[in-house]
Amino acid sequence: MAKVLSGAGLRGQVAGKTALSTVGKSGSGLTYRGYDIKDLANTCEFEEVAYLILKGNLPTASELADYKASLKNMRGLPDSLKEVLERIPADAHPMDVLRTGCSFLGNIEGEADFDQQQNVTDRMLAVFPSIICYWYRFSHDGVRIDVETNDDSIGGHFLHMLHGEAPKALFEKVMHVSLILYAEHEFNASTFTARVCASTLSDIHSCITGAIGSLRGPLHGGANEAAMDMIEKFKSADQAEEELMGMLARKDKIMGFGHAIYSESDPRNDIIKGWSEKLAAEVGDDVLYPVSVRCEEVMWREKKLFCNADFFHASAYNFMNIPTKLFTPIFVMSRLTGWAAHVMEQREDNRIIRPSAEYTGEEYRDVPPINAR
Amino acid sequence: MAKVLSGAGLRGQVAGKTALSTVGKSGSGLTYRGYDIKDLANTCEFEEVAYLILKGNLPTASELADYKASLKNMRGLPDSLKEVLERIPADAHPMDVLRTGCSFLGNIEGEADFDQQQNVTDRMLAVFPSIICYWYRFSHDGVRIDVETNDDSIGGHFLHMLHGEAPKALFEKVMHVSLILYAEHEFNASTFTARVCASTLSDIHSCITGAIGSLRGPLHGGANEAAMDMIEKFKSADQAEEELMGMLARKDKIMGFGHAIYSESDPRNDIIKGWSEKLAAEVGDDVLYPVSVRCEEVMWREKKLFCNADFFHASAYNFMNIPTKLFTPIFVMSRLTGWAAHVMEQREDNRIIRPSAEYTGEEYRDVPPINAR
Repeated sequence: MAKVLSGAGLRGQVAGKTALSTVGKSGSGLTYRGYDIKDLANTCEFEEVAYLILKGNLPTASELADYKASLKNMRGLPDSLKEVLERIPADAHPMDVLRTGCSFLGNIEGEADFDQQQNVTDRMLAVFPSIICYWYRFSHDGVRIDVETNDDSIGGHFLHMLHGEAPKALFEKVMHVSLILYAEHEFNASTFTARVCASTLSDIHSCITGAIGSLRGPLHGGANEAAMDMIEKFKSADQAEEELMGMLARKDKIMGFGHAIYSESDPRNDIIKGWSEKLAAEVGDDVLYPVSVRCEEVMWREKKLFCNADFFHASAYNFMNIPTKLFTPIFVMSRLTGWAAHVMEQREDNRIIRPSAEYTGEEYRDVPPINAR
Repeated sequence: MAKVLSGAGLRGQVAGKTALSTVGKSGSGLTYRGYDIKDLANTCEFEEVAYLILKGNLPTASELADYKASLKNMRGLPDSLKEVLERIPADAHPMDVLRTGCSFLGNIEGEADFDQQQNVTDRMLAVFPSIICYWYRFSHDGVRIDVETNDDSIGGHFLHMLHGEAPKALFEKVMHVSLILYAEHEFNASTFTARVCASTLSDIHSCITGAIGSLRGPLHGGANEAAMDMIEKFKSADQAEEELMGMLARKDKIMGFGHAIYSESDPRNDIIKGWSEKLAAEVGDDVLYPVSVRCEEVMWREKKLFCNADFFHASAYNFMNIPTKLFTPIFVMSRLTGWAAHVMEQREDNRIIRPSAEYTGEEYRDVPPINAR
């Protein structure tokens, strides 16, 4: 007889093996293939970390150059995909746009064989920023942008398409850091969605499409958007403190703090907070960053709750003029690497994921004739 | 410390509660809300069972009439969705088409609030046959079909669009039975995908899109297509026996037999086998049905393996002139009811589904400078 072991949500139950990351176990608290997130974020480019996660090892200088060149060549959008994106209205949820773009891509450039999994993933990595920016600029600004820019990095490509000009060096650097921080996080709900799908031996576009759908949920992705919605209402640090105390008194839900796995701090917070401070100086901000710092102080003082990866991402993205509704799609551009690597791992040592349920329904009974109901 | 309790794939581990179905516990082996699958398949229409699964109780005659009338009114395809379907080539995987159609629908008719979950599900139930047939007929036959037919049932609507004429009464009846048999099956991989997605509080189009992607996998949906591919090669029962014995000797994988949960028989087999026999008589078949029966005899005699729900579905669908590649999409048209009901159930008593992983990767290590790799 199957038993419930650790309450709902499979919390603490092992659902499989991974060599990709540890959470709350070594170093600062998050490692990708044994490397500390702090070291990776301080010294690497995002494409270097994507290579690490997807191919298994850090690239040499020439491997990295080749990898970036090949990604750069895959930024173009097929005409039929552009035509699909043009039919999605401006008020659609940007995560629905990405989910649909990924799913459509599976129809025209499907993974015919698992041997193609690396190439198909690289293609998604290169083209997801094109998908989201093409739709965004067409639906909001009425322009058909050129998605094949010559930017050096995925983050630079994204900012260039979004704003119509090559980004400042600092902005491109912060995008590297941000994409590294969000790239992988063990068996979170979206990654687990991808693994359940992969366990049926489905194609990788199905796995990633499903993962996007799960990340869309407000309990998972979207915390940085919710944090932004809150902090942009505060005009000063003092006002932030006053409002926050009121929210706490009313037991309002406050997003961007605490974590299901980390208990004392999120190692990603220090890193993105540092970059948010640099961006504030660069753009001459004297409101949003001080507001964010005060929120952090108040939440720790009152509730012993720490900022997670999402909280200072809100101000950082805002300083780079990224519309709030595109925060979670950036998460996708990054986490795609972790999702795809988990799919590959699941395929390598697979058993279909098929748990049991506790039955709480009606006892066995006869079907009454329709006229006797 | 988390532990692996029952091997891979979460087999036998309880991942949540359900009041929707039991598998291998009561009556013939499968119940929906306490009613035996045999009774439901013998006495009900599919829409009656969909109502049971989605709304919680069997409808009265007038409730059923209203429900069918409202579904009939929701068969139409928005122009933009037609235009998307027209851009999907004939060689696309039909499950990719449905996955994309469902995902696109979420952009133009999204679930703004969970209060809409029943209406949005009914819309999908009504429109999925339109999506798959519109694409199929456009890409394969070059025609833009009218999807708003006056057929009484979902199965009749599907056959009418597929073949351009109203179906025989027997065919429509068999579609009712088939859709009832496939409607719900506890925490299988696609349903579990939908529940993991729902546990992030994502929208229902994301949940169903993800579930379609999981059902697409050859370890899950598609067994009836694989069975068809096999049996259509056999020209007689004797040839079937000879070839099958060879396949068994070579340890080839033979689809449509055995089941992860049922150990002695699949209660759905007797039912669909009976209807396959009736269809064979109706269409004058003297090959495919005898071949299928012989396969069943040989597999039981040699391996004590029984036919599951999929095996006689192959011949039954074939007798109704349904192209093999559309078998799994029919599964979606039916299982959508179970998926959606599980999403609603998950939302009612939710905790985010976030299991743990056993780490098998590299020990903690320093990042080597790029020139020292």
